[in-house]
Amino acid sequence: MIVVKIGGVEGLGIEPLCADVAHLIGNGEQVVLVHGGSHRTNVISEKLGHPPRFVTSVSGHVSRYTDRETLEIFAMVVAGQVNKLLVERLQGLGVNAVGLSGPDGRLLEGRRKSALKIVEKGKRKVLRGEWSGVIQRVNVSLLRLLLDHGYTPVIAPLAISHEGEMVNVDGDRAAAAVAAALGAETLVLLSNVPGLLRDFPDEGSLIRSIGRGEVEAYFPYARGRMKKKLLGATEALEDGVGRVIIADGRAQNPIRRALAGEGTVIAQESLLF
Amino acid sequence: MIVVKIGGVEGLGIEPLCADVAHLIGNGEQVVLVHGGSHRTNVISEKLGHPPRFVTSVSGHVSRYTDRETLEIFAMVVAGQVNKLLVERLQGLGVNAVGLSGPDGRLLEGRRKSALKIVEKGKRKVLRGEWSGVIQRVNVSLLRLLLDHGYTPVIAPLAISHEGEMVNVDGDRAAAAVAAALGAETLVLLSNVPGLLRDFPDEGSLIRSIGRGEVEAYFPYARGRMKKKLLGATEALEDGVGRVIIADGRAQNPIRRALAGEGTVIAQESLLF
Repeated sequence: MIVVKIGGVEGLGIEPLCADVAHLIGNGEQVVLVHGGSHRTNVISEKLGHPPRFVTSVSGHVSRYTDRETLEIFAMVVAGQVNKLLVERLQGLGVNAVGLSGPDGRLLEGRRKSALKIVEKGKRKVLRGEWSGVIQRVNVSLLRLLLDHGYTPVIAPLAISHEGEMVNVDGDRAAAAVAAALGAETLVLLSNVPGLLRDFPDEGSLIRSIGRGEVEAYFPYARGRMKKKLLGATEALEDGVGRVIIADGRAQNPIRRALAGEGTVIAQESLLF
Repeated sequence: MIVVKIGGVEGLGIEPLCADVAHLIGNGEQVVLVHGGSHRTNVISEKLGHPPRFVTSVSGHVSRYTDRETLEIFAMVVAGQVNKLLVERLQGLGVNAVGLSGPDGRLLEGRRKSALKIVEKGKRKVLRGEWSGVIQRVNVSLLRLLLDHGYTPVIAPLAISHEGEMVNVDGDRAAAAVAAALGAETLVLLSNVPGLLRDFPDEGSLIRSIGRGEVEAYFPYARGRMKKKLLGATEALEDGVGRVIIADGRAQNPIRRALAGEGTVIAQESLLF
């Protein structure tokens, strides 16, 4: 069982990626895909006259402010566009893909974060009306039901709160939660760089392996979204996933290359290459 | 087993509709929802700078020209916005809804219509690059798998061609295909009028019942989208659905009212009220 997190549909080539999934499934592997769509959401939000707003948290992280309108645009783009284009492409390659998002069958359930503590013009303030969340439960039985009947789940990064509200969640951490819940052997997090770089953006400075206990020490090397990948990796390993590989999604056969150890492999020491 | 076709999310109140579905499911009924989203697609298409184009077929029908860009906007709106808002609302009411569209698990499979024969400025011409289709097969086993495990399918009107291309399909006819495939007892087609009107828009001229063999004779009374509803009704009855009720989606408890016979009931003579 392999869980693969991919980006949106641009940047990372959808064609080689889907071909790679088809190859693995043809070889009898079970694969679950989790995808993103933030960049495309920003583009569509701009066009619809509701440009994205980014805020800085008190801990210094920059993140998107998801008001209700942004959430609905995000849902539209990730569940209706990115997800369906992936399902279409996979179906064209003979993979019986089924697109889902967190609210479907309460696949991904969690806590809504309805306010953000931010810093604006040097002042701390609380920003209400946020529609994002943190996953606390995965409906594994729905995933197994589909997998056992030959379907390949393709999951959009939305969740449902305990109160039944749709929320935006981080795709890397959603993939980590899914991998942990399924007891997956491997979680592959595809990126637009070859893995964690010691000296960003020098691709020659790729860090090839990290022992499970050492991840914390590598956070200083992570830029931007790479931090979420390390966080997801930590969560997945803590919850029993064998190894996490952060790898290059731009290559041919990106998943097979990752499985062969190309990228940053984070695992129990005994599982490192 | 009841299959219900609703419109998009505006016009027909999503709130009373979802409450009605929750009530029926609470009473042990199995319900499958099929929805639309054309109006909302037109609005978003305009905003995204790709306004909808309507064409007149050689037989005089006006329909949307679905080029690839329109298809992707349509998918985004119906599968990502309308579908997820319905799933969210139903989940909030305790209904374990799962949103799907035709490409998911090849739920709705059919023939792509890639060219339209149209009349423009009095001249006949063939318009290529169309991405719509006609449903020929429903993956009933996927629907039963979900229903048997307590999930309520909510279906967006997209299908997949035999070649694996995503296509736009008519929601009323999709609902008819689903009802027929499931051997549903009743198909409810909700509208923004009380049913088929003999003297449109006089709501007092509601036609209360039509025998199965007589539908053809009533086509002249149908305006606009009502024609598709009569066509869907004909197809559903031919394929074994017990009765089709075209009813008012704007009312409180719209489904229960329809099931009680409020609307235009089309059935075998023995099943008419």
